[in-house]
Amino acid sequence: MTKIGIIGATGYVGAELLRLLLAHPNVEVSALSSVSFEGQGISDVYKTFFNKTNLVCGNADEVIEKSDVIFTALPHGLSEDIAKKAIDNNKICIDMGADFRLSDESEYETWYGKKFVQPELHKKCIYGLPELNKEKIKDCKLIANPGCYPTTINLGLMPLLKNSLIETKNIICDSKSGTTGSGRGLTLTTHFPEENETFAPYKVGTHRHTPEIEEILSTIADEKVTITFTPHLLPINRGILSTIYSTPKKEIDLEEIHKLYIDFYKDMPFVNILPLGETASIKNVRLSNDCFISLHLNHRKDQIIVCSTIDNMIKGAAGQAIQNMNIILGFDETEGLNLIAPAF
Amino acid sequence: MTKIGIIGATGYVGAELLRLLLAHPNVEVSALSSVSFEGQGISDVYKTFFNKTNLVCGNADEVIEKSDVIFTALPHGLSEDIAKKAIDNNKICIDMGADFRLSDESEYETWYGKKFVQPELHKKCIYGLPELNKEKIKDCKLIANPGCYPTTINLGLMPLLKNSLIETKNIICDSKSGTTGSGRGLTLTTHFPEENETFAPYKVGTHRHTPEIEEILSTIADEKVTITFTPHLLPINRGILSTIYSTPKKEIDLEEIHKLYIDFYKDMPFVNILPLGETASIKNVRLSNDCFISLHLNHRKDQIIVCSTIDNMIKGAAGQAIQNMNIILGFDETEGLNLIAPAF
Amino acid sequence: MTKIGIIGATGYVGAELLRLLLAHPNVEVSALSSVSFEGQGISDVYKTFFNKTNLVCGNADEVIEKSDVIFTALPHGLSEDIAKKAIDNNKICIDMGADFRLSDESEYETWYGKKFVQPELHKKCIYGLPELNKEKIKDCKLIANPGCYPTTINLGLMPLLKNSLIETKNIICDSKSGTTGSGRGLTLTTHFPEENETFAPYKVGTHRHTPEIEEILSTIADEKVTITFTPHLLPINRGILSTIYSTPKKEIDLEEIHKLYIDFYKDMPFVNILPLGETASIKNVRLSNDCFISLHLNHRKDQIIVCSTIDNMIKGAAGQAIQNMNIILGFDETEGLNLIAPAF
Amino acid sequence: MTKIGIIGATGYVGAELLRLLLAHPNVEVSALSSVSFEGQGISDVYKTFFNKTNLVCGNADEVIEKSDVIFTALPHGLSEDIAKKAIDNNKICIDMGADFRLSDESEYETWYGKKFVQPELHKKCIYGLPELNKEKIKDCKLIANPGCYPTTINLGLMPLLKNSLIETKNIICDSKSGTTGSGRGLTLTTHFPEENETFAPYKVGTHRHTPEIEEILSTIADEKVTITFTPHLLPINRGILSTIYSTPKKEIDLEEIHKLYIDFYKDMPFVNILPLGETASIKNVRLSNDCFISLHLNHRKDQIIVCSTIDNMIKGAAGQAIQNMNIILGFDETEGLNLIAPAF
Repeated sequence: MTKIGIIGATGYVGAELLRLLLAHPNVEVSALSSVSFEGQGISDVYKTFFNKTNLVCGNADEVIEKSDVIFTALPHGLSEDIAKKAIDNNKICIDMGADFRLSDESEYETWYGKKFVQPELHKKCIYGLPELNKEKIKDCKLIANPGCYPTTINLGLMPLLKNSLIETKNIICDSKSGTTGSGRGLTLTTHFPEENETFAPYKVGTHRHTPEIEEILSTIADEKVTITFTPHLLPINRGILSTIYSTPKKEIDLEEIHKLYIDFYKDMPFVNILPLGETASIKNVRLSNDCFISLHLNHRKDQIIVCSTIDNMIKGAAGQAIQNMNIILGFDETEGLNLIAPAF
Repeated sequence: MTKIGIIGATGYVGAELLRLLLAHPNVEVSALSSVSFEGQGISDVYKTFFNKTNLVCGNADEVIEKSDVIFTALPHGLSEDIAKKAIDNNKICIDMGADFRLSDESEYETWYGKKFVQPELHKKCIYGLPELNKEKIKDCKLIANPGCYPTTINLGLMPLLKNSLIETKNIICDSKSGTTGSGRGLTLTTHFPEENETFAPYKVGTHRHTPEIEEILSTIADEKVTITFTPHLLPINRGILSTIYSTPKKEIDLEEIHKLYIDFYKDMPFVNILPLGETASIKNVRLSNDCFISLHLNHRKDQIIVCSTIDNMIKGAAGQAIQNMNIILGFDETEGLNLIAPAF
Repeated sequence: MTKIGIIGATGYVGAELLRLLLAHPNVEVSALSSVSFEGQGISDVYKTFFNKTNLVCGNADEVIEKSDVIFTALPHGLSEDIAKKAIDNNKICIDMGADFRLSDESEYETWYGKKFVQPELHKKCIYGLPELNKEKIKDCKLIANPGCYPTTINLGLMPLLKNSLIETKNIICDSKSGTTGSGRGLTLTTHFPEENETFAPYKVGTHRHTPEIEEILSTIADEKVTITFTPHLLPINRGILSTIYSTPKKEIDLEEIHKLYIDFYKDMPFVNILPLGETASIKNVRLSNDCFISLHLNHRKDQIIVCSTIDNMIKGAAGQAIQNMNIILGFDETEGLNLIAPAF
Repeated sequence: MTKIGIIGATGYVGAELLRLLLAHPNVEVSALSSVSFEGQGISDVYKTFFNKTNLVCGNADEVIEKSDVIFTALPHGLSEDIAKKAIDNNKICIDMGADFRLSDESEYETWYGKKFVQPELHKKCIYGLPELNKEKIKDCKLIANPGCYPTTINLGLMPLLKNSLIETKNIICDSKSGTTGSGRGLTLTTHFPEENETFAPYKVGTHRHTPEIEEILSTIADEKVTITFTPHLLPINRGILSTIYSTPKKEIDLEEIHKLYIDFYKDMPFVNILPLGETASIKNVRLSNDCFISLHLNHRKDQIIVCSTIDNMIKGAAGQAIQNMNIILGFDETEGLNLIAPAF
């Protein structure tokens, strides 16, 4: 059994990783760490682990020592040094945060206000979107696990951009996310009486996933792609749905586009293209590692609208990380991730 | 006391009209009708009226006879003949449905699949968006009360389009509505276990509010405006928020735009322009007749993003209708509508 | 216009008082205070007051000076000295907290861990449940506004206990409350992703409303009444429903009990007794000052089950306080409180 | 692989069975039936099965023929004849409905208004609560799978009643359930805008789970047990929590009771006894087959309060049925049911 460690196990991403990894048939979770809860059992932090595991939170060094694969689920800026130590000790490291997602240091500085701490490490790192980089991931020791919003948008647009079918300037990405995306930190925005029964955008034009989306879309298109990105907060726990508006370069036959999508994703087990006339919905994917995509035209047939949805905690975080782990370790890509979304 | 009747009182719009009108100081609700519940007390249909009113549902003719002002809250296609009868009897009629909203019969036929039943009546009708048509409403006997989605978008864009500041082709309108907008009819989409904890678009590119929005925006701009409109269903009861993306004709100074909005709406009691840096949220407006608008630029500053929110049942339906009634009857525009949204 | 001040205006009870008082025709809100937000406009704290009031939070002394009636909406232990100052300055004081609710100092010490600070003041104070103490409230300057849970239970049992119809030992009170009852303070319990889609009891057997309920029920019954009280937290914003189980002293005729309740409450404008066969629901009362009560027997007809529901922020806090104010100032008891619960 | 069939696969219980069985390592779902959707793919009825299974709904006879184990998930009154046919064909039948739960035909007639159709079959049937009847289940071909409410209450009280520690008259069972318990049939009660943000009891004193609870509790206690049972509807999808009030026969030491519970359930993999001072919550069990129980005393220490919670669709229906199947087929009792509740 491969030994797995989670650094930052008591945040939402860490706890979700633990839940999924405990059910994974080929691995064993050997160690957890948490700065806030060091010394406490994980089942004292999340009662759902009561009688399920006796793991106790230690520190990061212990996790690195006891594990073959280390997941770092930390606020940005804290992973680079830990990843260095893991890689230097010949471990595999999958970073759930933003530290390694941008390849351009100046973009990173613009959006995150700091420089790379371990610049040489960034060259060894692969962006862990398996639908884009599967072959590169196989031989990689350091994965930048993608952001949740970028995953919906990148999967939603990949077939169009790979085939140069849409204009690459100012693609409108209107995204809506459940509250787990904001994490476990207490804020008025996620205080139940103030978040329940409401809906609003946030960080309009300033969200840090913007440069990540633009970089990956540009890689896909092999030319500069620019977007307008607006995230919104939904009064639900899980799920992201992005409604993406782009302009076809020439007249669109939606049935052809639909075939293209099905063909493009035919060997990718988690991406599902709905029949034309159906509409992607967060309930298609909640609690699964799936992405569901639906394709639409506006009434004038001069805009293509792609709706793309995932569970932000699974395909948008912990599940995609395990998918990357499976690929690196040579397991079936879907091992431990054969989850069917509950219909209700 | 002016006598008021509601035709279609047991649907959500009718019931909300009744709730607001019972608290209006200058009017008396004299009669209700309902096809499904004729002969039953309204408090048997909605328990919240228990001990509040003894009104019993009759038929449409009785309502017309007993009332000075008649609100028709009916599925589209059923209001034209009733409006004719009301107008012929010298009553005022405010139609909450879609029958009179479009001035172009061929557009109506395209989207609703039927012709005008009373074509001459359409010439006497005014589109009841007071922020656009207040003077015309004063002398009018027949009001087409606006749709809920169009109200958010038309109020959100009016200052930009009146001043020719944005491109008029393909404005992206990404709208999200609470479930009361779907009415009281039972469907799987609004069955609690299937709507709770999810989110999805619907009628992408085909929603019937599209031509209404385009007609009113074109009137405002005095040139043809085209949009792409995507409605989504939120797992909340009340409220619509539209996120509207448009391209400035020349470089934008957001502070100037902000001043323009404040100035444009300074005499319009229900439209509130948030300070720059703040973000419109459905909780600003829930259970009030207010519209809240926030203004934003994307990170490249080449797109203006307007967020506009209302309570779909009040400013999007019953409240706006009462606002129209107030204007026609010479009451203060805000009479019975001085509602402050509960903060929680 | 009577001048009103709110001390502790930025908590949920204070904000709800402000919302309701701004719509009250006979009073003017003259001053607010807040320790946390002194110097800030209330509309900066709650955006729903934007364009509705320019009131700025000051300190408690300013509020006392500028107001005829002072509402104190503070954590327990902070109101006694402020009430003293208000009363010494000939003002009326309505305390929303627990400081004056218990008449027995030793009970207060047992449950709250401290002694009375102003013991003489407690003798002048009346428990502000108008359905019990209306005559005494008329001439009172200092009101202990009841707790939210106690209001449901006391109103639910009053006719039975006044008429000695049930056993007074171990009445089971199983109560469920929305999250606004927990206030604005941030906790994991009310963090959206951890409160949404769940339900649990809390403080089983130890909640501080227990002695308040027992004292008032004993007053009503004129003998010692004991209860078992279990509060639960509902994943909704507003509303309390208590399901109350008691044993009839002799065989019950539910129709007679029903008549008794209707007769008992016939002059009390906010208490509504549902017809037999119907069931009280939080949606009957949400956003109103009403209490709805339904009466039931178990299948063996040896237990009477009373379901009693209020909006915890209105009849359970701010609305009941205004009802008390109306009575003291000689206004109609319902002034400013004629609110019909929205049906959706 | 054992072949499994589901009769009534398109209701909520049937769909949940399918979701769980598709992930079970030792069985294969061979056939589904549905009266309403015969001929349609299950993924057309529930989009979450899209790309997960190609199973098409047939009729009941086909299911019986193609399967070794048949789950009947039907409205009461429809299972007896189907079970007869299954048993006559040497199949195993697990009935999810109420047809076989009551052993006393006159009680069945009182509560369900009809007699047994296959009275001889009832003698061969075992009530499928494995924590009570595991040994009997092993050799049984016909299982009456327990109701959801009864499972919470029976598991909550079993150690107390087996040990004669509480009075057996009038145990108060105050239960709260999520909306999936009402099934997929459309009703106003479960129409989103009318169920969201509210809470109410229903069928007070008349719910059909009452005789089932009383029968099983009496079996456990080996004397007649009577209850008062009030179900309530929670505005969430999944989960039941029952708050159960009983009177100890003699003074209680809660720590001893706690040890008794832990010992009683030590070999039962799905029942979890929380440490004293902690409180059962629906989020402990949602989407798992677990039952969580917490133990409390009231402030006078003369009532014991047991809080017991399960996922109504899993331990309250589909999961418990699979647990029964595992026992009958000799699989590990937890096979396919090692589900950890997501913490958010």
